[in-house]
Amino acid sequence: MIDRVEELARAFERFPGIGPRQAKRFVYHLLNVSGYDRERVADLIHHLADDVRQCPYCMRFANFSGVACTYCTDPNRDDALLLVVEKDQDLAALERANAYRGRYFVLGGVLTLSGKGAIRERELIATIERQIPLGLTELVLALSATSEGEHTSDRVREIVTPLRDHLRISVLGRGLATGSELEYSDAETLSGALQNRKET
Amino acid sequence: MIDRVEELARAFERFPGIGPRQAKRFVYHLLNVSGYDRERVADLIHHLADDVRQCPYCMRFANFSGVACTYCTDPNRDDALLLVVEKDQDLAALERANAYRGRYFVLGGVLTLSGKGAIRERELIATIERQIPLGLTELVLALSATSEGEHTSDRVREIVTPLRDHLRISVLGRGLATGSELEYSDAETLSGALQNRKET
Amino acid sequence: MIDRVEELARAFERFPGIGPRQAKRFVYHLLNVSGYDRERVADLIHHLADDVRQCPYCMRFANFSGVACTYCTDPNRDDALLLVVEKDQDLAALERANAYRGRYFVLGGVLTLSGKGAIRERELIATIERQIPLGLTELVLALSATSEGEHTSDRVREIVTPLRDHLRISVLGRGLATGSELEYSDAETLSGALQNRKET
Amino acid sequence: MIDRVEELARAFERFPGIGPRQAKRFVYHLLNVSGYDRERVADLIHHLADDVRQCPYCMRFANFSGVACTYCTDPNRDDALLLVVEKDQDLAALERANAYRGRYFVLGGVLTLSGKGAIRERELIATIERQIPLGLTELVLALSATSEGEHTSDRVREIVTPLRDHLRISVLGRGLATGSELEYSDAETLSGALQNRKET
Repeated sequence: MIDRVEELARAFERFPGIGPRQAKRFVYHLLNVSGYDRERVADLIHHLADDVRQCPYCMRFANFSGVACTYCTDPNRDDALLLVVEKDQDLAALERANAYRGRYFVLGGVLTLSGKGAIRERELIATIERQIPLGLTELVLALSATSEGEHTSDRVREIVTPLRDHLRISVLGRGLATGSELEYSDAETLSGALQNRKET
Repeated sequence: MIDRVEELARAFERFPGIGPRQAKRFVYHLLNVSGYDRERVADLIHHLADDVRQCPYCMRFANFSGVACTYCTDPNRDDALLLVVEKDQDLAALERANAYRGRYFVLGGVLTLSGKGAIRERELIATIERQIPLGLTELVLALSATSEGEHTSDRVREIVTPLRDHLRISVLGRGLATGSELEYSDAETLSGALQNRKET
Repeated sequence: MIDRVEELARAFERFPGIGPRQAKRFVYHLLNVSGYDRERVADLIHHLADDVRQCPYCMRFANFSGVACTYCTDPNRDDALLLVVEKDQDLAALERANAYRGRYFVLGGVLTLSGKGAIRERELIATIERQIPLGLTELVLALSATSEGEHTSDRVREIVTPLRDHLRISVLGRGLATGSELEYSDAETLSGALQNRKET
Repeated sequence: MIDRVEELARAFERFPGIGPRQAKRFVYHLLNVSGYDRERVADLIHHLADDVRQCPYCMRFANFSGVACTYCTDPNRDDALLLVVEKDQDLAALERANAYRGRYFVLGGVLTLSGKGAIRERELIATIERQIPLGLTELVLALSATSEGEHTSDRVREIVTPLRDHLRISVLGRGLATGSELEYSDAETLSGALQNRKET
């Protein structure tokens, strides 16, 4: 007989940021809620992918009908820009910020300095090649300002080299992030903040 | 149409210690794994309670056949002792420590100083009354060494007052916990550590 | 008789970020080092201000001869720019970053939202008025990207209003700081990062 | 000419738990306070050891006249017990707890697993040998419940082996420390807590 408590705890351990102890707490949480609530969670997971599909253009997971997601098919978005992010949640953060109206591409990961990780290289090339005839002129590398983010940006720059005749490549600007204190900011952040200073 | 991504994120937010952001990460994690793996999680949750039941004696959740769980029915455990814990995971920690061979009772919560929380009072009385004829002589209050734990111990002491003729009540010993540094220990911890010092 | 251990611990408690417990550790540290080392610390503090003075122009503490500090008198620095920081350490961080070659002014604090704190308002006006004839055209408000920093910037803007005919006012650019992750960045940071994106 | 700002920052870096950045903040703090306050700190450090001496019996730093400190000469303290701690602050914590009335010895450090650190071995032997004729029967090893603390206890046990005919050796009791939660307690803590449980 399977020990479902143990099995489920092990499944929760594979959730991002969850260790064995918290995984066990999740199982006990589900044992303590009503059968109705537990069934509802099972059901939502069971049907999660029913109407959420991966968009073949930007590779994000979304609820859409037709061939591609709403961001990829929205005629009011700017085809001149393609912004590359690491993961779906980064794209969601940019949409919440309401600061970008171009197209997106989700790499699905980062490359670590030790050579681990995988990104959607073929799919990115395919999306760029489809977008160039539609007017794409700038690829915005919107990776995190971390060593992994920079390493991943380097790799993307490398693989798009053959397409650089049609494409400018830009990276997100450096500067003070909300909460940044000058005293604890490094040279790159401060230089960016000074170069990008804005008249008020 | 239901937005299952949002609905499931909201369900994960009710998991212990999970905020909106991590809840969303869990959903994307489940979207990124294979359909097989996702289905397996749904299935484990769906069938979680099939063979896990709440033991009517100690109130823990466990996989058992017969009227009560293996700890409650094991003839090699000492009926003279009944140890009261807050939650299933505390009981599991004690079993892992391999330091106790009596019976258990799980309160299912703590009482906060502001009057919140609920514990299984009636069930505790019933279990004590069932155990007294079997030889129960000591109730071990094994609550955490926190203000909530002490408040809950006080309440348990109160409700078992009518049974005190048949019952000694003890609390877990105070002393240095693994990792405790003297400099940062309070008077209660240090007094306990001195009283309970052990010849070596 | 004075209890110097207690007195000195109390003096250390007034050091930034130091609580009673660490203050006591400092005292024991000084008791445990050699008399020579202890005397050396006393002596350095005793003579600290002998050759460190507050520059009457930028208000920072520095070792200089003549009327003002080296940054204020260096003929190779750009008199068109005056950069306003909260404290000496912020100025030091900017110098380390090697990203700025104009003049400085140290406010000596921030204004909190609850109306606490004080800044060198009169001294700032005096320094601006002295710099305008020398070519000052831009005041760079280099406060931290915190609510206190912004509140302080607002106040500085207010007090320099009478001088705005001679002066542009700018603030440091927003964007990704080193270590910033997109997912956890707010709208202001992301908007700044997109606006300030840089071709590579 | 010496750069006193840098020199003093370097001296503060040797204070326990202080990095280069906080060391610099301390210097700026001292520059910003009044000359009177700065002078007072220098003076307290200068005279710190004037009336604080190291007790030749227990090795703690204290203000005492006569040959040894008040704890070592107090006729109301129990000569049967000698409690060994790592550092002065541990002794102070025990005194605050008001739970011990025997004699003390301060080791002045711990031994790390990698073979670093030094303790006052000769002085400990001398103190034990002086106390045995006065009635010493128990040596209480009151080290922290950490791997370093245990390693140091082992070493002390080793060096007092020749004296074990006259001496029982005890260690502080294990149990729940204030704040301990059962779920996160390890086997040693839980076993100690159960063994040392106390009737109430």
